Amino acid sequence: MDNIKVGVIGATGYAGLELVRLLLGHPDVKVEAVSSVSFEGKEISEVYPQLTGLFDKVLTDDIQVVDRCQVIFGSLPHGLSEPIARRCVDGGKLFIDMGADFRLKKESDYVQWYGGSYQDTALHQMAVYSIPELHRSLVPGAKLIANPGCYVTSVCLGLAPLYQEKIVLPDSLIIDAKSGATGAGRGLTLNTHYTECNEAFAPYKVAAHRHTPEMEQVLSELNGAPVTLTFVPHLLAVNRGIVSTMYLSLADGWDEDKVRELYGQFYEKERFVKLLPKGDIANLKNVKYSNYCHISLHSDPRTGRLIVVSTIDNMVKGAAGQAIQNMNLALGLKEETGLCMTPPAF
Amino acid sequence: MDNIKVGVIGATGYAGLELVRLLLGHPDVKVEAVSSVSFEGKEISEVYPQLTGLFDKVLTDDIQVVDRCQVIFGSLPHGLSEPIARRCVDGGKLFIDMGADFRLKKESDYVQWYGGSYQDTALHQMAVYSIPELHRSLVPGAKLIANPGCYVTSVCLGLAPLYQEKIVLPDSLIIDAKSGATGAGRGLTLNTHYTECNEAFAPYKVAAHRHTPEMEQVLSELNGAPVTLTFVPHLLAVNRGIVSTMYLSLADGWDEDKVRELYGQFYEKERFVKLLPKGDIANLKNVKYSNYCHISLHSDPRTGRLIVVSTIDNMVKGAAGQAIQNMNLALGLKEETGLCMTPPAF
Amino acid sequence: MDNIKVGVIGATGYAGLELVRLLLGHPDVKVEAVSSVSFEGKEISEVYPQLTGLFDKVLTDDIQVVDRCQVIFGSLPHGLSEPIARRCVDGGKLFIDMGADFRLKKESDYVQWYGGSYQDTALHQMAVYSIPELHRSLVPGAKLIANPGCYVTSVCLGLAPLYQEKIVLPDSLIIDAKSGATGAGRGLTLNTHYTECNEAFAPYKVAAHRHTPEMEQVLSELNGAPVTLTFVPHLLAVNRGIVSTMYLSLADGWDEDKVRELYGQFYEKERFVKLLPKGDIANLKNVKYSNYCHISLHSDPRTGRLIVVSTIDNMVKGAAGQAIQNMNLALGLKEETGLCMTPPAF
Amino acid sequence: MDNIKVGVIGATGYAGLELVRLLLGHPDVKVEAVSSVSFEGKEISEVYPQLTGLFDKVLTDDIQVVDRCQVIFGSLPHGLSEPIARRCVDGGKLFIDMGADFRLKKESDYVQWYGGSYQDTALHQMAVYSIPELHRSLVPGAKLIANPGCYVTSVCLGLAPLYQEKIVLPDSLIIDAKSGATGAGRGLTLNTHYTECNEAFAPYKVAAHRHTPEMEQVLSELNGAPVTLTFVPHLLAVNRGIVSTMYLSLADGWDEDKVRELYGQFYEKERFVKLLPKGDIANLKNVKYSNYCHISLHSDPRTGRLIVVSTIDNMVKGAAGQAIQNMNLALGLKEETGLCMTPPAF
Repeated sequence: MDNIKVGVIGATGYAGLELVRLLLGHPDVKVEAVSSVSFEGKEISEVYPQLTGLFDKVLTDDIQVVDRCQVIFGSLPHGLSEPIARRCVDGGKLFIDMGADFRLKKESDYVQWYGGSYQDTALHQMAVYSIPELHRSLVPGAKLIANPGCYVTSVCLGLAPLYQEKIVLPDSLIIDAKSGATGAGRGLTLNTHYTECNEAFAPYKVAAHRHTPEMEQVLSELNGAPVTLTFVPHLLAVNRGIVSTMYLSLADGWDEDKVRELYGQFYEKERFVKLLPKGDIANLKNVKYSNYCHISLHSDPRTGRLIVVSTIDNMVKGAAGQAIQNMNLALGLKEETGLCMTPPAF
Repeated sequence: MDNIKVGVIGATGYAGLELVRLLLGHPDVKVEAVSSVSFEGKEISEVYPQLTGLFDKVLTDDIQVVDRCQVIFGSLPHGLSEPIARRCVDGGKLFIDMGADFRLKKESDYVQWYGGSYQDTALHQMAVYSIPELHRSLVPGAKLIANPGCYVTSVCLGLAPLYQEKIVLPDSLIIDAKSGATGAGRGLTLNTHYTECNEAFAPYKVAAHRHTPEMEQVLSELNGAPVTLTFVPHLLAVNRGIVSTMYLSLADGWDEDKVRELYGQFYEKERFVKLLPKGDIANLKNVKYSNYCHISLHSDPRTGRLIVVSTIDNMVKGAAGQAIQNMNLALGLKEETGLCMTPPAF
Repeated sequence: MDNIKVGVIGATGYAGLELVRLLLGHPDVKVEAVSSVSFEGKEISEVYPQLTGLFDKVLTDDIQVVDRCQVIFGSLPHGLSEPIARRCVDGGKLFIDMGADFRLKKESDYVQWYGGSYQDTALHQMAVYSIPELHRSLVPGAKLIANPGCYVTSVCLGLAPLYQEKIVLPDSLIIDAKSGATGAGRGLTLNTHYTECNEAFAPYKVAAHRHTPEMEQVLSELNGAPVTLTFVPHLLAVNRGIVSTMYLSLADGWDEDKVRELYGQFYEKERFVKLLPKGDIANLKNVKYSNYCHISLHSDPRTGRLIVVSTIDNMVKGAAGQAIQNMNLALGLKEETGLCMTPPAF
Repeated sequence: MDNIKVGVIGATGYAGLELVRLLLGHPDVKVEAVSSVSFEGKEISEVYPQLTGLFDKVLTDDIQVVDRCQVIFGSLPHGLSEPIARRCVDGGKLFIDMGADFRLKKESDYVQWYGGSYQDTALHQMAVYSIPELHRSLVPGAKLIANPGCYVTSVCLGLAPLYQEKIVLPDSLIIDAKSGATGAGRGLTLNTHYTECNEAFAPYKVAAHRHTPEMEQVLSELNGAPVTLTFVPHLLAVNRGIVSTMYLSLADGWDEDKVRELYGQFYEKERFVKLLPKGDIANLKNVKYSNYCHISLHSDPRTGRLIVVSTIDNMVKGAAGQAIQNMNLALGLKEETGLCMTPPAF
């Protein structure tokens, strides 16, 4: 069988580049086309010399990516995906959107958090939002996939068993998350200027980050009832990775051991989610460069609270890796294909 | 007037060294003696070459420090301070303990969290625990001062106005704190080996850190009623600084603006605590190398929670700087003496 | 055809772990056994949790690795390889030594720089030293391979065309090299304690590093005449990578452009060595996680000197990657097999 | 005596800010005015919140700084200093230029390396270039001081005894220097974007850096004969500090021990230059935040070369600290005034 032709729109952004990296290691696809608004006409290896000799394809415009490929990943600023998605869908291709344009089911949420509005509402109706471990059954055959946000992935994988079991006390959830600087993208800002970011640390967009409604959407659906949460992200002076430290209160009768058992069952067959043994603590360094999510559970015996630590690589499980997982599901490939590389420890 | 003779026991540990640095810049004291178990007999500038030409004193044993000085700072592992403190007190000197031995008022807390027990109970009765902004009036004339823990300082300064006003809903407090690696000390561990700590991030001692009962002690006293809290510290790959992100629910009738006004009044005359303007976010980089605490207030309109971000330099306001502030108070010097150096930004 | 059984002795050290990572991605081998003195009996994924679910093999003793595998990689402190190598050779297996025990052809050099002496001299006579780009023809069929030192690899690849052409003025060569902290290994030292290594920089073993005689051995052989050089390594506060900045004077009639042409021809067919275009500068970040060596050439028109910048990943091309390249050659596999993974940019 | 009124033009750049920091700790001056093109009208503590409560002065335009102060430090991009200097000189004030406009004695060098030309040549004739340890006698009473470049300071202090003794073989000098990222300034560039600079390392402006002619000027004057050298700077992923590793050949009859004695005498009375004991190696971490230069000497017995390692803080001895040293000399203050603060170790 011939390899499937895939393409990446916005391939020189950080998520786009990570897609290229992982897709080049995928045995069933061929990276046929890559585009970039800023570097169109250059070889991608001129922009990223680590690709020299490995992948020297010339960057095109977005349309060529759509027209030459069967699967198209869109790594674009929000607000730009609809026309691309439309062209893909009309051409019978699979479009996987890395951005936020198809993630929120209620248009009012999109309007409130992102501005703008939905133009091509038919697309939104056909879009499938998928964290594969939670929405796997919806993906096969999908034509338009909304790939989840990085924070959302770490949070929802860390909490899904609890909300599906409906044992989190209403409004008790607090999420304190920390993300490496690739999460801020390649655009130059004072906050990500080396001397300002190095040896610094602070929260940002306190209780105002756009991933908030997306988390609530996923958790509410699992919960069968609305979930409201407090979410505060922080910028971490590392290149990669997210750690979400999450605090919540459990319904009567539940404790860490019972919860541990619940998680064990929930994730028993999952390739990419690992519940750590009692006493171990999830560390960002152990998931860097991999598609894994590590979760550790802790209880505060004095307050009764449960503390869940969930860590992923924001660029892999939080973006490109999960997108490939979704592609595999949509195309009927084995879900883990291309995603079981051994990550470097350092 | 002659300068006051001061000494540092344990001067080659990180907190001890920071004491030396700050005391050398204090106009009213002379650093008369410094001790070190590991490096006794060497010049301190052999251990820390940045002191060469500035402070080349020979490291002695602990007893010499006590006997030659009027004010003695003890920077020792817990469990070792009682005999030193006794010798100071009996000699009519001032002893300031940087460690935990005199911080907890209930011996049962000490036994539970640190092991061991109180031998010389008279010392514990005379010990004054002091975060100056909260306990200032107790310090003048004190002979034995328990200098607070670093995390405790960031937390209690960040929350004091709320607890004194008694407007925090019981058991609603969650503290997610992050500390630079000097907080882990100079002892070699795999967690602080460069390649293991760099580009890594994780919590540690989840809901089990020894600073927990100390925080509860301070906040409960302010509150006039017991406070129980959840505290999770994280190791941050920076050299210095603590950021505590704190989440809580307020009593009816209180919102961010009213709280902002409350903080404004509470800290109006304080030299070293700054409430940031609405919209600004406290960042570790702005307090590094200074004795300041920066506090920012945020509300989550969707859940009603208040979020307080409090940041200090763990080595200065969280240790050596605060100890000097306490010394100044005890001796009747101007409280800010020696602590208004301009910090480097990078 | 069944996969070849390979094993790693010393698999929990940094080079050993990198071997495991790369061998797991090699299509023609199976990692059959791994050993560790410190962690024998544990699963390797308990030591490195990033391997959980990917490679959970139990660590054995060294003998089991030899006896169960066809190819054995030895990642041991110097002085320990001879008995292992003997057992491999006698068993008809291939032994690839990552350490220094078989690198130096003159025993007197080994005695001078490493202490100890050669016990089993027959092994030293059969050992093949190989930087594949320079010694490729010697490797097929070898039974004992001495894998080169990391600094040596960056230096010799950067200079080989010049010395083979015999156009470097005698004794003009100066090498200023910088290595990331994995080069210092996993053993705890004050120099690699996070707070001491972070925001620090210095040379070490100035003109006294053990890789010096090895460099001279390789370059002298190419040169057909003895080469003496000055080599100063520095510890860089990054996890991975080596940059060697090299200064030398050329014979009459040679300039940067002619040298550029020479390098172009010398490395024309090489997969893993890239001469950068005129004006570009080799940067460690572009070879991290890859088996590539990037070389940039520069001239100082005012002094006539040539400056060569050569950068590799010390863990890949400088250790594990090159060892696999040598294994491929020895076994008659395609040289690049398992080494063309796309490296992450961050 | 009233304090001397000093001002900083360009106070929100990195060197300007460091001047403010150090001048605020100087007992004989008052920082009367500070200017900034980008932030005029704002309080400087809005730009750098670490100054809040310590120094909240409003940023003015440049003219006000000149008119209100007796000593003016100019921290400007090159090409802009002449009119400011003229206004100072005409007003009987002292102008200290942190930039390159008055450093080069030959206009042709300026034209070649910086472009532009000298307009107000009288200013250039009166300008005094001063590394105080080398040019001290020229400074008292000066009205216009050219403060040296950061790399130049580390290099010339490291080599001055050798060139004054005229014992360096012609054209043997090679300088491999590494500088922290504050050296690149506050302007946003891809090279100093956090994710691109972190875990990276490379040279830049290879044999083409503008500090080259300035080094040659200083060393040639000491040498009494022209010195030509090779200089290659590298960008180091730390905030502060320069390490220059320098390689050279000595005249017959000189060895490390004799040179050590020479340095000992040359720097015997210097407050800010320390020759390290034999066997010690200069490390950037030991001069950070201080006005000291640490020098270590090493010989390569195999090649006969001398290796000099010289390290300074690029922001202090390499810029603001040295400028204050020059101011002290010009005004007849004790040279070390305001510069003997104890540096933090971390």
